[in-house]
Amino acid sequence: MKRYADMTVDELEKEHAVLEEKYKKYKYMALNLNMARGKPSPAQLDLSMGMMDVLSSDSDLSCEDGSDCRNYGVLDGIPEAKELMADIMEVNPDNLIIFGNSSLNVMYDCISRSYTHGIMGSTPWCKLPKVKWICVVPGYDRHFMITEHFGFEMINVPMLETGPDMDMVEKLVASDETIKGIWCVPKYSNPTGNSYSDETVRRFARLKPAAPDFRIYWDNAYTVHHLYEHHQDHLIEILAECKRAGNPDMVYKFASTSKISFPGSGIAMCAASHNNLEDIKKTMKFQTIGHDKVNQLRHVRFFKDIHGIDEHMKKHAALLRPKFEAVEEILERELGALDIATWTKPYGGYFISFDSMPGCAKAIVSLCKKVGVQLTNAGATFPYGIDPEDTNIRIAPSFPGNDEIREAMNVFTTCVKLATVDKLLENKGIEETAKEE
Amino acid sequence: MKRYADMTVDELEKEHAVLEEKYKKYKYMALNLNMARGKPSPAQLDLSMGMMDVLSSDSDLSCEDGSDCRNYGVLDGIPEAKELMADIMEVNPDNLIIFGNSSLNVMYDCISRSYTHGIMGSTPWCKLPKVKWICVVPGYDRHFMITEHFGFEMINVPMLETGPDMDMVEKLVASDETIKGIWCVPKYSNPTGNSYSDETVRRFARLKPAAPDFRIYWDNAYTVHHLYEHHQDHLIEILAECKRAGNPDMVYKFASTSKISFPGSGIAMCAASHNNLEDIKKTMKFQTIGHDKVNQLRHVRFFKDIHGIDEHMKKHAALLRPKFEAVEEILERELGALDIATWTKPYGGYFISFDSMPGCAKAIVSLCKKVGVQLTNAGATFPYGIDPEDTNIRIAPSFPGNDEIREAMNVFTTCVKLATVDKLLENKGIEETAKEE
Repeated sequence: MKRYADMTVDELEKEHAVLEEKYKKYKYMALNLNMARGKPSPAQLDLSMGMMDVLSSDSDLSCEDGSDCRNYGVLDGIPEAKELMADIMEVNPDNLIIFGNSSLNVMYDCISRSYTHGIMGSTPWCKLPKVKWICVVPGYDRHFMITEHFGFEMINVPMLETGPDMDMVEKLVASDETIKGIWCVPKYSNPTGNSYSDETVRRFARLKPAAPDFRIYWDNAYTVHHLYEHHQDHLIEILAECKRAGNPDMVYKFASTSKISFPGSGIAMCAASHNNLEDIKKTMKFQTIGHDKVNQLRHVRFFKDIHGIDEHMKKHAALLRPKFEAVEEILERELGALDIATWTKPYGGYFISFDSMPGCAKAIVSLCKKVGVQLTNAGATFPYGIDPEDTNIRIAPSFPGNDEIREAMNVFTTCVKLATVDKLLENKGIEETAKEE
Repeated sequence: MKRYADMTVDELEKEHAVLEEKYKKYKYMALNLNMARGKPSPAQLDLSMGMMDVLSSDSDLSCEDGSDCRNYGVLDGIPEAKELMADIMEVNPDNLIIFGNSSLNVMYDCISRSYTHGIMGSTPWCKLPKVKWICVVPGYDRHFMITEHFGFEMINVPMLETGPDMDMVEKLVASDETIKGIWCVPKYSNPTGNSYSDETVRRFARLKPAAPDFRIYWDNAYTVHHLYEHHQDHLIEILAECKRAGNPDMVYKFASTSKISFPGSGIAMCAASHNNLEDIKKTMKFQTIGHDKVNQLRHVRFFKDIHGIDEHMKKHAALLRPKFEAVEEILERELGALDIATWTKPYGGYFISFDSMPGCAKAIVSLCKKVGVQLTNAGATFPYGIDPEDTNIRIAPSFPGNDEIREAMNVFTTCVKLATVDKLLENKGIEETAKEE
């Protein structure tokens, strides 16, 4: 196959006609495929159904320290849940609070609390004329929506192979005390799937923020979510590294079991320094008497320990891997030779990040939608939904079945080609007009 | 027994000596009894252990509308949970959002959201120079702590036999637009145990607040928590009444299953007008993808319907009733003739409210504590922990065993008498001094 860039107008028009024909056929297939959200598939959820059996009416629902998990109390999590989650989080159990079912909710509350009450004695952000936030792009839409909801000015910093552009991050953070935080998905990042390098983590730990209440929001959503047993990304642990660098209070680390056990019925957590945890608890004690300890106990009795988690995650990987491989295989087969797009090949997480030629992403997503293939909205991986180059599309292969993924990816690659040919013809038209004038 | 008020100094001193002797004996008993918090007893929690069996690894965890309860989604609750909770809340299921495990958390979030984002387009409270809040006293300490945490100025309004002093409430609310809310526990109130009269509810619905973003926080915590089958309080439903009165958006109604199923592992809810619910969801959708639907399903499969709830609550009542009766019996036996205190005799809820002679409550609680009987701190039922008359003590008989309650109440009544005699002697001393001068 000839590279599209080398084609003449005639050749492009011929290719366009072929693609149009193919696209029309999809129209009649009345497809209904969804690759929009990072949802586990039913088969993945089946893996955790044993959780429904570990507690019965005969069970003793007391936890290690003797507390009755059925009753009020225990603000920050039962000891055995802390121990298990600490191993997932790679921190000391004492540096952990266990929350409810949603780490997104924990992050929202951290921002809301800083907004209403400040951090460790700082001025509440609601009393400041301006708050800014660094967003690594492409990134997670729900992160950006929180900071947009609070009216923070969001500053884009590009995600490189090694993680965020640290030259930019260092400069921004050091020079502007209205910058109060940064959204990070350090491991198997959403949506690129790659992980921060050791140097990036070290540079994060050594930031010199102008704002004493600047916090790194380290959303470790995919900490144990590997696709392969031997190719696994490993990151330097950020809490320990911040401590070593003399910045112990600079980071909040988040995670949940949403994509380990059940989304919506898992448990979420936040790891931070003692100072930060005390600060969080100062507000938290007014907010709730405690989170769902029975569910904490259920998780501990089901997974037992970090080895149990690891074995469980291998089963998730066995279901997810073929889906990622199918996506990559079809992208390579259909687009590999054309030189019109790039995409990531992650070792874990839930997403593949796809970059089209500039100005094509919206058109591709729209073409897909018209024939029943739902993708994450183009632009969603950027603050305010605005991808300045209109190139990035997040592919989420976890939910559909393997055959559906192949079908969806055939549609997708056809739409990529169609939109690209359209764009190339448009560009050539502009060139011609320019020449004539 | 002679009324203490009629006793001479000599008689009081003799009584004091007798009481001191009795009190000393308690000291050596090394008691450890806790009547401080409204916690269900282990026997009550046992009533819901069947909840651990209703879902198993063979269960279909889909809800009525086909959603997989194990996966992400369903922001405001599964339909069958809404239906069940709507019956508890006496509202239409459409007027309901199901939340996580804690109604306190829902209330906190309502205030926090109003503080950060305003209500239905109003100015966020954090941008106002002052926010005031009405607190019905005596009331629930955790309510007051939330409004204190946000720095609101709290205004005490006394709780009468019929509910809050509505003359005061009407006047305050109509005249001051910085008053943004009022804490209410309308049924089997915390701590008095009595319920608002029909007239009170009607007057609430017809308030004419100066602030358009004034909201009644109607914490219906004890809505189905009757102690008797035939003596039950019944309230006019506040949402419907507000709608009739042309004030549909003036109230948020809260409840949870914390004292129906398991505290910490129940489900919480908020009922309100469509306008309010849409306003809440505008923020909520950034905060979370959804609450624990598996737990919602678990509740529905266990309780089935409102009849199931009612039958279940009769079992709670059977365990609680003897405890309340023991408290009332010992109070009556030990204090009835002395004319030194009053207490409530509720038909439901979790508390008995006790009023000593002015200036005695702190001393009573302190005397009890010294011999191993823990009560809610005196003053806790008032904002800032300050009971201006120092009279109110909240008695929470639910948690201890029946024998423990009798023991604790014997200690308590001894301490009441001791503190009262002390106070009377002190008063007589002051009178004498005054006469001499």
